[in-house]
Amino acid sequence: MTSNLKKYTVELIGTFFLVLTIACTGLLGAEGVIAPLAIASALMIMVYAGGHISGGHYNPAVSLAAVIRGALSPCQFIPYAVSQIIGAVLAVIVFNLMASDSIMITAPAEFDIKGLLIAEFLFTFALCYVVLQTATTKNNANNSYYGLAIGFTVLTGAFAVGGVLCAGAFNPAVAIGVSMLGIITVKYSLLTIIANLLGGACAALVFKAVYSE
Amino acid sequence: MTSNLKKYTVELIGTFFLVLTIACTGLLGAEGVIAPLAIASALMIMVYAGGHISGGHYNPAVSLAAVIRGALSPCQFIPYAVSQIIGAVLAVIVFNLMASDSIMITAPAEFDIKGLLIAEFLFTFALCYVVLQTATTKNNANNSYYGLAIGFTVLTGAFAVGGVLCAGAFNPAVAIGVSMLGIITVKYSLLTIIANLLGGACAALVFKAVYSE
Amino acid sequence: MTSNLKKYTVELIGTFFLVLTIACTGLLGAEGVIAPLAIASALMIMVYAGGHISGGHYNPAVSLAAVIRGALSPCQFIPYAVSQIIGAVLAVIVFNLMASDSIMITAPAEFDIKGLLIAEFLFTFALCYVVLQTATTKNNANNSYYGLAIGFTVLTGAFAVGGVLCAGAFNPAVAIGVSMLGIITVKYSLLTIIANLLGGACAALVFKAVYSE
Amino acid sequence: MTSNLKKYTVELIGTFFLVLTIACTGLLGAEGVIAPLAIASALMIMVYAGGHISGGHYNPAVSLAAVIRGALSPCQFIPYAVSQIIGAVLAVIVFNLMASDSIMITAPAEFDIKGLLIAEFLFTFALCYVVLQTATTKNNANNSYYGLAIGFTVLTGAFAVGGVLCAGAFNPAVAIGVSMLGIITVKYSLLTIIANLLGGACAALVFKAVYSE
Repeated sequence: MTSNLKKYTVELIGTFFLVLTIACTGLLGAEGVIAPLAIASALMIMVYAGGHISGGHYNPAVSLAAVIRGALSPCQFIPYAVSQIIGAVLAVIVFNLMASDSIMITAPAEFDIKGLLIAEFLFTFALCYVVLQTATTKNNANNSYYGLAIGFTVLTGAFAVGGVLCAGAFNPAVAIGVSMLGIITVKYSLLTIIANLLGGACAALVFKAVYSE
Repeated sequence: MTSNLKKYTVELIGTFFLVLTIACTGLLGAEGVIAPLAIASALMIMVYAGGHISGGHYNPAVSLAAVIRGALSPCQFIPYAVSQIIGAVLAVIVFNLMASDSIMITAPAEFDIKGLLIAEFLFTFALCYVVLQTATTKNNANNSYYGLAIGFTVLTGAFAVGGVLCAGAFNPAVAIGVSMLGIITVKYSLLTIIANLLGGACAALVFKAVYSE
Repeated sequence: MTSNLKKYTVELIGTFFLVLTIACTGLLGAEGVIAPLAIASALMIMVYAGGHISGGHYNPAVSLAAVIRGALSPCQFIPYAVSQIIGAVLAVIVFNLMASDSIMITAPAEFDIKGLLIAEFLFTFALCYVVLQTATTKNNANNSYYGLAIGFTVLTGAFAVGGVLCAGAFNPAVAIGVSMLGIITVKYSLLTIIANLLGGACAALVFKAVYSE
Repeated sequence: MTSNLKKYTVELIGTFFLVLTIACTGLLGAEGVIAPLAIASALMIMVYAGGHISGGHYNPAVSLAAVIRGALSPCQFIPYAVSQIIGAVLAVIVFNLMASDSIMITAPAEFDIKGLLIAEFLFTFALCYVVLQTATTKNNANNSYYGLAIGFTVLTGAFAVGGVLCAGAFNPAVAIGVSMLGIITVKYSLLTIIANLLGGACAALVFKAVYSE
């Protein structure tokens, strides 16, 4: 494989397991604490596994933030995002294969759109801010905690705004996958994607303002 | 930005997400295990993200302990505490924006003041002791666990005394934010702040007694 | 002890505590979050304890993946797998000694075989992929997170597919132990073992495709 | 303070917070997942905080294992154990001060003594084995995971045998503290202490057999 193809494969694998875990735990009536813990854990393990090859984004908002920060070449944004989305779509297909027919998908709740978008913006901001601070700076080079910090940012967000506001994607690839499963509507999915990308871009700008080597 | 302004911004951002997480999980009837886990996680990720810039205090009691220990200049105490309190106040404002009107805030429980103050003193002591030991010593330089240890000290305290005694701030900025939300009265908030600052000061003195490079 | 005997002993001890924890938490009606957390934790601590001696596999599928990747000599596969299986069998014997007679073992649920095998294949793949990436590469040498990543891969898998699909071994030695306890039938145990070994082999091939030093 | 007095103070502080957390979460009807998580977390944070000064034992069985392994001078065993027991006793006194009178202490359950002693022996063995492997070897020098591994060994044990068998001390100082609180009888406390010390001694012997630098 070429070096680039290796990176795209790693992004695809990581996003696949992230979205598969979301589908399995988010749809199957798991206890309140289980889905956030499982999803955070899925992200953490894939960041640790693939970080040294592709950066371990698994999230177009993170890839956008990395481009703005200068940690990813701009021409890599599209192939990264496409690999992530393919991983998400494959996860939904495999989930449907794997799950028995009797799985009940909870009907979409009524959303408070304003709260949702603020929540998606804020915690995608937090996620990208944590990624840039822990995984792209010289000050924190060779640390062993970046995966823990990144994964548990999603835990924090899922606990903080996942339950009541029905937010909790913080990731356009996840929003697409969740939309395919019928949990959210396409309109909500598009709004989420915009909020996520804005959050990532703002995080990169704030990072550049507060960081100096 | 000047170097100092960068530090204050990082303290503000971290305290903002800490208090936002407290407001979202503490007020919204989350399961018993969720609020402590979410709050510990919020603190941990912000310590890892901002520690290399500002020290990652997000807590005036920790900043006081850092001053007494010699890890923060005394003239920085007021701007640090003010940044932290602004972050907490902003979090309350954003929480009110984000939450729908139907959120029910649990009425303040009857407190056993003596137990509360002992609990706030002891676990703020533990928190500042852990911060000074893991994040300010040469013996433990360049470790990867300081954020985990600091965040999970709050988890320990929240589990140990949060449920029954209704304590669990361990942080004057949090006490102010929680007071604004109407969960605790202003009188209790002031007593908490005093117990927190005493805990931080004692931790610094004990640290200086037991530590030698 | 010879160097090899030390390795086998460490593999036996680690698999013993892993399967003992599975028997204690999986059979005794623990809450939904407890068994996955306890099992992930058991694996994590034994990986950290024994990794520097034997590699800390505790799982024939991981040993197979390590052989294919070139991190374990092929002639070590059989003694590793035998040590792991002995550890699992001893754990079952000790569990029966330790547990009182009144323990009720839940009768085997009806399985959806197709979903089960996909789930066992996928998460054994994930487990071996994470092991090879975090514990056998020069890029990630001397990190402190490999045990956390490996243990929490099992957490992710147990949460994702353990509850509904009744999968959750991801490990032939565990499948044998669980079969001895009467939780699953011998036929299911054999199918699980095949799915696990296939998952491990595929993970090694994918690893070799995406990794370059 | 002299160097030795510093070590004893650190052991006292750590055991104090460990036993205080056990008293607060074990006695107050916390959910099944909370007490093990809080106790593991208390141990982890104190190991990270004090490990560089005293070794961070907080447990006479661990101190015994450290003596046998050659990591602690034999003449230090008694002062270490005494400091740990004083910390435990102080925690019980402070807990009684802090808790309101209405706290109901669950009456001791009927124990299956055989299962209890096997469980206390096995998981004290596991705890001391993990301590010696992760915190006293040159192979694992300067790692950042020792506190996580040690704390989560107690989590594993508490989940595995804490609920059903009513075991879960794995520590003579804890057994004394819990006995003072009236949760277990003096007779059970003594049997537990013997099982703990045997577990620690065996772990040291096994460690010496499997380890080579």
